[in-house]
This record gives sequence, structure tokens and C-alpha cells, in this order.
Amino acid sequence: MPDKVIECEMIGAMTPTPMIIDTDPGVDDAFAIALAATSQDVDLLAVTTVFGNVDLEQTTANALRLLAVCGREDVPVAVGAERPLVHAQRHRDSTAHGDDGLSGFAHTLPDRSTGVDPRTAVRLMADVLEAADEPVTLVAIGPLTNVALLLAAHPEARAKIGRIVVMGGGLGRGNVTAAAEFNIWADPEAAHRVLAGASGDLTLVPLDLTHRCAVDQAWLGALRDSGPLGRTLVGLTPAYQETYRRSLGWDGIVVHDAVAVAEAIAPNLLRTNAFPVEVECSLGPARGATVVDGRSAAVRESHGVLAKGVHVAVDADVDQVRAFLLDRLSTVD
Amino acid sequence: MPDKVIECEMIGAMTPTPMIIDTDPGVDDAFAIALAATSQDVDLLAVTTVFGNVDLEQTTANALRLLAVCGREDVPVAVGAERPLVHAQRHRDSTAHGDDGLSGFAHTLPDRSTGVDPRTAVRLMADVLEAADEPVTLVAIGPLTNVALLLAAHPEARAKIGRIVVMGGGLGRGNVTAAAEFNIWADPEAAHRVLAGASGDLTLVPLDLTHRCAVDQAWLGALRDSGPLGRTLVGLTPAYQETYRRSLGWDGIVVHDAVAVAEAIAPNLLRTNAFPVEVECSLGPARGATVVDGRSAAVRESHGVLAKGVHVAVDADVDQVRAFLLDRLSTVD
Amino acid sequence: MPDKVIECEMIGAMTPTPMIIDTDPGVDDAFAIALAATSQDVDLLAVTTVFGNVDLEQTTANALRLLAVCGREDVPVAVGAERPLVHAQRHRDSTAHGDDGLSGFAHTLPDRSTGVDPRTAVRLMADVLEAADEPVTLVAIGPLTNVALLLAAHPEARAKIGRIVVMGGGLGRGNVTAAAEFNIWADPEAAHRVLAGASGDLTLVPLDLTHRCAVDQAWLGALRDSGPLGRTLVGLTPAYQETYRRSLGWDGIVVHDAVAVAEAIAPNLLRTNAFPVEVECSLGPARGATVVDGRSAAVRESHGVLAKGVHVAVDADVDQVRAFLLDRLSTVD
Amino acid sequence: MPDKVIECEMIGAMTPTPMIIDTDPGVDDAFAIALAATSQDVDLLAVTTVFGNVDLEQTTANALRLLAVCGREDVPVAVGAERPLVHAQRHRDSTAHGDDGLSGFAHTLPDRSTGVDPRTAVRLMADVLEAADEPVTLVAIGPLTNVALLLAAHPEARAKIGRIVVMGGGLGRGNVTAAAEFNIWADPEAAHRVLAGASGDLTLVPLDLTHRCAVDQAWLGALRDSGPLGRTLVGLTPAYQETYRRSLGWDGIVVHDAVAVAEAIAPNLLRTNAFPVEVECSLGPARGATVVDGRSAAVRESHGVLAKGVHVAVDADVDQVRAFLLDRLSTVD
Ligand SMILES: [Ca+2]
Ligand SMILES: [Ca+2]
Ligand SMILES: [Ca+2]
Ligand SMILES: [Ca+2]
Repeated sequence: MPDKVIECEMIGAMTPTPMIIDTDPGVDDAFAIALAATSQDVDLLAVTTVFGNVDLEQTTANALRLLAVCGREDVPVAVGAERPLVHAQRHRDSTAHGDDGLSGFAHTLPDRSTGVDPRTAVRLMADVLEAADEPVTLVAIGPLTNVALLLAAHPEARAKIGRIVVMGGGLGRGNVTAAAEFNIWADPEAAHRVLAGASGDLTLVPLDLTHRCAVDQAWLGALRDSGPLGRTLVGLTPAYQETYRRSLGWDGIVVHDAVAVAEAIAPNLLRTNAFPVEVECSLGPARGATVVDGRSAAVRESHGVLAKGVHVAVDADVDQVRAFLLDRLSTVD
Repeated sequence: MPDKVIECEMIGAMTPTPMIIDTDPGVDDAFAIALAATSQDVDLLAVTTVFGNVDLEQTTANALRLLAVCGREDVPVAVGAERPLVHAQRHRDSTAHGDDGLSGFAHTLPDRSTGVDPRTAVRLMADVLEAADEPVTLVAIGPLTNVALLLAAHPEARAKIGRIVVMGGGLGRGNVTAAAEFNIWADPEAAHRVLAGASGDLTLVPLDLTHRCAVDQAWLGALRDSGPLGRTLVGLTPAYQETYRRSLGWDGIVVHDAVAVAEAIAPNLLRTNAFPVEVECSLGPARGATVVDGRSAAVRESHGVLAKGVHVAVDADVDQVRAFLLDRLSTVD
Repeated sequence: MPDKVIECEMIGAMTPTPMIIDTDPGVDDAFAIALAATSQDVDLLAVTTVFGNVDLEQTTANALRLLAVCGREDVPVAVGAERPLVHAQRHRDSTAHGDDGLSGFAHTLPDRSTGVDPRTAVRLMADVLEAADEPVTLVAIGPLTNVALLLAAHPEARAKIGRIVVMGGGLGRGNVTAAAEFNIWADPEAAHRVLAGASGDLTLVPLDLTHRCAVDQAWLGALRDSGPLGRTLVGLTPAYQETYRRSLGWDGIVVHDAVAVAEAIAPNLLRTNAFPVEVECSLGPARGATVVDGRSAAVRESHGVLAKGVHVAVDADVDQVRAFLLDRLSTVD
Repeated sequence: MPDKVIECEMIGAMTPTPMIIDTDPGVDDAFAIALAATSQDVDLLAVTTVFGNVDLEQTTANALRLLAVCGREDVPVAVGAERPLVHAQRHRDSTAHGDDGLSGFAHTLPDRSTGVDPRTAVRLMADVLEAADEPVTLVAIGPLTNVALLLAAHPEARAKIGRIVVMGGGLGRGNVTAAAEFNIWADPEAAHRVLAGASGDLTLVPLDLTHRCAVDQAWLGALRDSGPLGRTLVGLTPAYQETYRRSLGWDGIVVHDAVAVAEAIAPNLLRTNAFPVEVECSLGPARGATVVDGRSAAVRESHGVLAKGVHVAVDADVDQVRAFLLDRLSTVD
């Protein structure tokens, strides 16, 4: 793998990428936060929390602890939405990530001295963006409630966001339902607001791709042996591993959110195509589906679809992605 | 009418009611803004604008001018949403209020020296509420986009809002469609967020009631003759009058939004019943309908409906309402 | 009441009205079937059954027994739909009418010697209509599944139907949900097919009106004392009475379906207005609502609504209706 | 190709397969009808028509003429639905197949002496099924309106249908919209009735697979040179070819419906997996999508999905399919 690792580092930006992460940790969020929090080429401006894998109180506690693990007392953490934008939530996905979102090991992590920022998530994001000198990358790895609220309540902020990278959706497949991936399903209306007719640069990393980048026991073993951070992260995965063992019959995990952060750090790590995307917001069987218009441009035009596209990640050198993740998470002292 | 007027004044609060108005002027918004801006017992803290009767640029310009007419250079005006929360808007209701929202006479109003506040509508509302010492009444007389965003992005602000008064919806009837009233139809998802499972004190003033409080030519004549403000307001109504003449065959107008502001100034001017309310957000024929659960509490419980209610205005002494409005708008020097 | 009764009989057609009844008995269906089966001025050509108040097996058994009670061994009974047109049913409304649809007294009724017709409900209706020499009145007093199937599968049959009378829907109110009346809610897609853009003569009798025609203990007592049929019918009402006592706190019942049959027998017994009607088929809170476009013709046209109307029963001399029902059901020997 | 052809013939049933075809011709329907009408191992019991590629009058005329081309005066043809089950149709797909559904060449085909059967499509299907001694294969290659009506109005007929083969849907892709294939999109409610919780043997041939079986100019040339039938069929393709050239940039056509008929003649020509399937019936962007639950059985169960599956064609030896079609359509004298 050495060649690939070198290649990956070349992909990374030379100057640090200013970044905001909106998250609902979650085991794969843990990997994603660690990736952003410890990468030298990332300037992590803020972490905002949202309900999702577990409830808001727990996702916020988890985010603080994960930053503490990474030695990041400095990064402001603000509390976001406790429920979806329009329809009050009835479900949670607590089982896949354990009751506390981190396989039951959240309490083993250190507390962070610095508590939450007094501002709401939306206000912190708006303030950080207003103060930014260069384009900020916003990475959304939970339900899109906070991001939709930011774009709707602070339209002026959009100009300061260079790029939005979203983990979510699927190409004709789902995980929570037959049609919907968890992040989108958890707040379809917010997702529609963010994705449909998206202006500016927006990359969607769907579960088709993150599944292809799944990591196995060898990868997890190498990470565990790489040092304290690696050991801690792998220690958060037992319930998550069990979920994949039980549901898919294989021995490894999908680090969905970390793949999205990797793309945010190293643009074009994933190969994307631009497609119009809408989200089904009805209450029918396709609720939460990302409707990706994969038809040819000629066909789309003949049906009057003129929307600008979302950059949907459709392919990647998956060994390169895995190597990038392992290298980044291993080289932390 | 003198007795009634006296009675009305007794209803009004003795100390000024702190108030924020969210509006999309609109002819009836003009009456509503004038009512709030000139009433001695109102402390008008902010006016925020939203797309609706006309586009956001025009509603904002109209709001500034109307405040100028009322001599209110001091009230901060902030610009809000230019589109609905979830689904981009395809329609406008420009015809009923004329192309400029004020029967084509917007340009005849004076410009206000004080322009818009640099903050977004949501941030201004959040700041004003944070600074408030006593409960603020929030009156929403346009599409509910800004209000939904405030509640979702700034949940802490809810505690500072004593009361929300909304003009919108209908009891099994609509105006824009068979089922939907304009304000709700213009952003059903926002309306659902605000109305469904509403916490705290929320009063909904539906079009059934505002229609019953319609004013005729005699009322309009009395207002016109009462002084400069009355003359100006009546001067903004020709296109609006024409709409009612053409569509309903009668000679007068419905000052929807002013009825809601009247209730905000003089609580219990309208008689209300508490009902659970939801908004239909599908794309079917009932899109934008306010689904008011008028069944008995026993029936509701037997069907598992336990939601707290919205105070829906179902009745009023309509002559008293008309007298209240005329009196308030006439006694301005 | 004598004058009214005479008046009612004058309203009835001079020559028997050929009639098909589609039903899901149900206590009020029992009154309705008895009304049609015993009225001299009705030529009852067929009774077809549908799932609804209870399941299809029970509604069919109930229909047969009720016809036996009325001495009508001759009327063909055919079995219709056991489920809605599009979405499989998850709910039943067994409680209001008792577990067997007739307050637990179905088994006390005599069995009918003549069993069900071997044809399906749709085929029987199509055959009866094909053979008809004069226009047939089709009265639908259950979910509209069979009627929608008839109209869709046998479009040629429409020309033989002089008039369709439907008990269902509400004007901005419901009973099963805040927005939906039972018959429509039980199969909204079928109802939309039947009601939207209805061609020909269709009268909708909504629950607003049937509630106004509710009958009290005096009426029930008079019917019970009128003879064997009256005694039997009233004997089927205990669970149904209990439902109204518990849910509405009053002592009487609503004989929804009998009001519709009364109108079918005596056209213009109810006063109707023509409105375009659609049915909300989404899965949202308004699912099953009858969206009645009560706006003025000028307003409808300005919004592009050109649909022909359904005759919606909006008013009646309710004492006359009650007298008509009591007279008809009492004068059977 | 000789080996493959022999293999295909072995796959075909030894005794003729009784078959009903429900169709909306359409160029690919022409190939499908010819395949069934001329195959020795098919006993074509009936052809029923439905609106779709063009309107009902034209699809019926086309079906008659295509059977005349095949020398099949004997096969009864009955007229089915002119519109979808629930929502009146607003669109047609006339362009892809030319204004007359057959690239403008419908009028060049001979008229059939035997006109349409006097019965409706649903009644003809019910009668044919009632009379059948052995299981009938029903092949639906248009909107599913007639089939849904048959199943709903004649539930007893289901037992006589050995197998339903449907051309329709897509696995996360569409052609008419981003999410929906034409046949399903043209009547989603009917498709949901047929596909969701399907009982008995039902095979769905989605456009993913039919596209993979697309035929090129060489195939079309070989068919044209094979004899009069082949020459006629290829003569109906110019507008259809132009559609593919313009929209997809390649030189050939997709004979969707013929692939489904091939599978109906030669079961297991296509490889299928069993998945629960629902159809999105909302009015949102996924309207008409076939929601195929491709998740593992363990995941489905953990989310409470217990529905029996539809056999979805997911793979095939596409050269074998093309050879089967060419061989069958060529060997007609
Ligand atoms: Ca996450
Ligand atoms: Ca307004
Ligand atoms: Ca009934
Ligand atoms: Ca076809």
C-alpha cells in the first residue's frame, strides 16, 4: 500500500481546508470526526450536532468526548436540531450503533473540559462562515436538519461555503427502508431543501459507494495496533460490527461518514457524476429516497428537467480510500 | 358604536404589548401593520418580511414604506425568506393585491430613511427575543417560513414568546385552492412545523372568521374620512376591492391580517376553541389544508389523538371587531 | 307529523325506482336496506356487499339476514371487494357497530334461504344494468370499492345508471380521522375515482347532513312500537347507541346510510349544491378527506377549476327526513 | 448462434402455454404480440387492450392489425381501460412510438376481419380464465389498469392464473421520469395493486434488464431479411429507432415487451430474485417508482417487512435472449 498512501497525501490540499462538521455520532461519525480533527490539512472551525443515530443529548455528548479523545478542546461544539424540520420524529436507529451511539462505550471516553458553545448550531455556523476569509467546506454526516436551517435562515452564508459534502442517500436502494438511507430518511424535507436545485458545489456520498469502501478485520486490526487513537476507535465498534455480521453476514464495518470526510479533505478521492437529485417527501414507500436522475441529458431535457446537478459519488479506487483512512487515522501520535 | 369602542379599549392591555410582526404586504398587511405601528398599547419591536403576496423584494419595500407612513423610522425591519422551506415556489398570488402588492400604489408611499437591518429576519427575531424582559407576542400574517425557521433554529427563543397569533387556514375551506388558504398554501411544511403539536400559546385566525369580519364601503368611507392614515390605507385598496367584487360579487374587502393583529393587541377579542391542527403537506388536492380536529375529545382519544391544541378563532362579535379596527386606525393624528 | 308524511309520500316516485344497493352492514346500513327492501316505490334489483364496518364475510351474512327479515328472498346478493382498491387495509371500524356489525345481534336474525349469487358483485351489477330498461339508481352506502371497479371495468354500464347516491365524506370534518369520514377513508382511491370529475348525476350525502338528521329515543321508541320490522331494527342498535353516548354524549343515533337511501327514493328530499369534489389520496393527515370546492364559480374559474360538480347535500328539512324514515319503516306489516 | 437457439427451444414448454396478453401497442408490443401469436408452443387465448403508448382507440386498432399480420383472426380482442384506475391521465408518451404508436406505419398494416369482442377486457379475461382447464399465463405489457381491475373485481380468477409476467419498473431508475418506467408511471395505483403483496407467481421484467437485451442494426437486419413478418416488424421501428438514437446516442432499439413475452413462453430464460415490491403512489418525484426491497432477508425482517416476493428479473444471458427472439420471429413462414 505505500504507493497509494503517498498518492493520497498528494491529493490532500496543501493549505489546510477550513471545515465545519455537522454530525450525529454514531460509530462511523467517530471515525469521521477523528479524521477531520487530527488531519494536519484540515482547519476544523466547528462541530455541530444533530439528532439521528441517537438523540441530541447523546450525540452532543459523544461529539464532545470524541474531540477530547483527539485532543481538540479548542473546536467549538454547538447544539443543533433535536427533531426533523417538518414532521416530528417517531423512530430512532439506536440499535445499529448501540444504545449510546458508540456500541455502549461512550462512557469510557474522557470528558472534554470545554463544554458546548452557548450559540445554537445554526448561529455558530452562520458566525463562523461570516468570519471566514476563504471558502469553508461543510461536511454533513447526519440528518440534514441543521444544514437546511442554515441555508434557509442565512442565505447570505451560502457564498462563504465553498463546498458541501453530504453522506447520504442511495442509488435505488436504502438501508432503513427499501428506498431510503438513514440520514435522508431521518429528515427528508431537510434533505430535499439541501439537495434539490442545489446551488454551488455539493457532493453527495451515497451508501452504494460507502458500502464498497467497507473495511474488514485486517483493516480494523491494523488500525487498532497503530496507536491510542486507533485502539480507541476500534474499541467503539463491537455493536456496529455485530449489526453488519447479523444483517449482511460479513465481518467488517462500513465507515460511511469517514468516506465523506475523506472526500472533503481530498477532493476527487471519489469519482462523481453530476445528476439532478430530489428527495421523495411523501409518506409512501419511497419516503426519503434520493431520486437521482440518471437519464441522459437528452432524455432529461426532452422531459423538461433542467436542474443543475449534485455531484454524486459513483465510483472510487476503494483500496485507495481504505488506505487513505487507515493512514490518516494511524499516523496520529 | 361608541359603547363597543369603549369595550374594545378595555380589552386592550394596559401596558404595551411587546410585538413582532412577520408579514408579506399585501393590502390587508398594510392595515395590520398600521394597526400595530400606531397603537399606543403596542411596543412594536421588529417587523420581518417574507415572500408571499408578492416577492420578497417588494414585500420588504412595502413594509418599509408602510412604517414610514406611520412615522415609524425606529422599528427595525429585517429581510426573511424568499422561498418556502422545502419545495421551491412556483406560484405567486400577485393579482389579488395588484402587481406591487398594494393595488399599484406602493410607489406613492414615502420612502423610509431607515433601511433594512443588516441581520436576517430569523436572527433579528432571535436577538429581539433574547433581549426581551417580558413575553413577546409574535404575529405571523404571511407564509410561515420565517416563524418555522425561528422555532427550529432557535428553540430557546420559544420561551420568550408569550403568544403566537397566526392569520391562516380555514375550517374545511380555502381560497387559493378548494382546501387551502393562501398563507398556509404558500408554505405548508412551515405551517405544519408551527401548528402541529404546537407548544405554548398559539392562536390561529382562519379565513372563515376573517371573512365574517369583512368591511363594507361605509366602513371604508369612514376610515378614509378619518384622517391622513385612513385616507392612505383606503387608497391602497382599489385592486383588492376589485378582486372581491369580481370573485364574490360584493362591495367591500376582507382585512384578514388586521383581524389577527387586533386579536394580538386585544386578547379574546375573538372567541377560540382549542383543537389539534395539522397541515396536509402532500402534493394532492388538500395540500395546504389546515386539518382541524373538531371531533369531541372522547372521539379523539378513542382514535389516539392526544395532541395539545391550537386556539382556533371560531367566532367573534364581528361588529365589535370592525369597530375596534376603525377606531384604532381613525384616531391617529 | 301527518302533513309531513303525506308530503313525503308525494315526493316519492310514482313508478318504482329501479335500485341497486352496495353496502357493508353496519347498523345504519340495516335501516337503509330495510327502507329500500320494503318501500313499494323501489324495485330493488340487487344488493352487493363490500368490506367496511366489519369484514366481507360478515357484511355479506348481515345483508342476507336483513333481506330475510324484510321477506326479500328474491333480491340477488353478490359478494364484492374484501379490501380497498389500491392499498391493503390495516384497520376496521368494528367497535362502533359491535363485533358483528349489528351490535352483537346478527345471529338473532333469520337466515335467508337464498344464498349469494354465484357472480361477483361487479359482474352482477354489470349484468343487472345491461338488462335494465330504464335508468337505475345506484346507492353506495359503504366503501366505494365495488362502484369504482364497476365504473372502471364496465364503462358501458354508466349509461344505464340514472343516478348514483353516495353516503360519505364531510364538509371539512371527519369521524374516523379529523378529516375523513369512514366510507371515504376506507378506500380513498376508489372514492376519488367515483367522485372526481364525476360524469352523470351523482349525489353525495356527507356526514354533516346525516348528523343533522340524527334520531332520538322518541323516534327510536316510535319505530320499535310500530311493528316487527321496527322492533327488529331498533334491537340492532344497542352498541351503536352506546358509541354515540360515549363519543358525543347524546342519546340517539345517526342513521347515515338510511338518509342516502331516502334521497335515492325521494329525489330532492335533501337540498344539494353542485361542487367539484376530489378525494385526498395521500398518506398525510387529510387522507380520505372529500375536498369540496365551495369557492364561487368566478374564483374557481380564475384558478382553472372547470370540473363538473357533484350534487352535495348541504341542507334538508330534517324533521321531514326523520318523518319520512319513520313512516316508511313503520308502515310495513 | 445455433447452439443457443437449440437451448432456447429446449427451455420452451413442450405443451402449448395458454396465454393472455394485455397490451398498449406500441412498437415493442408489436414484437411481443408477434412472438406470442406465432409461437407454436403458445395457445393465445385473448388479447386485451389498454391506453398507454397511445390512446385506447389506437392501441386497440393496432392490436387488431398486428394479429391480422400474424394471420390470427381467431384470437379474441377486447377493449380495456381508457384511463388509469384512480387519477385521470394528463400525459401520453406518443413521441417515442410515433403518433400512431407504430412509427406512423399503423395504416400500412392490413385490417382484421374479426373486430373486437363485445365484452370488456376485464370480462373477457374473467370468462377465458373461468373456462380454462389449466393454468393460464397472463402477460401484461402496458399500464396495469386492466390487470388490477381483473384481480380486484374477479378475485376468483386469480386461481386460474398460473403466472403473471409484467414488463415494467426499474431498479432505482426510470425512463419517463427519473424514478419511473412508463408502464408503471402510467398507472401507479394499478401497479401497486398488482405488485405489492402479490400472491401467486408474479415475474417483473424491469427496464434495467430489457435495456441490456437491446438489439442492434445487425439483429434488425437479420430479422428484416428473414421473411414477411420480420420485414413488417422492422418496418414499424423508424420512429422508435430515432428515439433511441436521439436520447441514448445508439443505433438500435429496446424491445421491452418482447423480452417479457419471451420469459412467459420460456420460463427461466431470465434469472430472477424474489424481492418485496411496492409502488410509490404519491404525487412526488418518485411517483411510479417500483420500490424493490433489495435488502438482505435479515435486514428486512429486522424492519418488519414480511411481504412475499415478486420474482424480479435481474440477469440473463442476453445473447440467448436476443437469439430466442430472432429465431422465433424469423421462423414464421
Ligand atoms: Ca452520522
Ligand atoms: Ca399577509
Ligand atoms: Ca354503511
Ligand atoms: Ca407496451
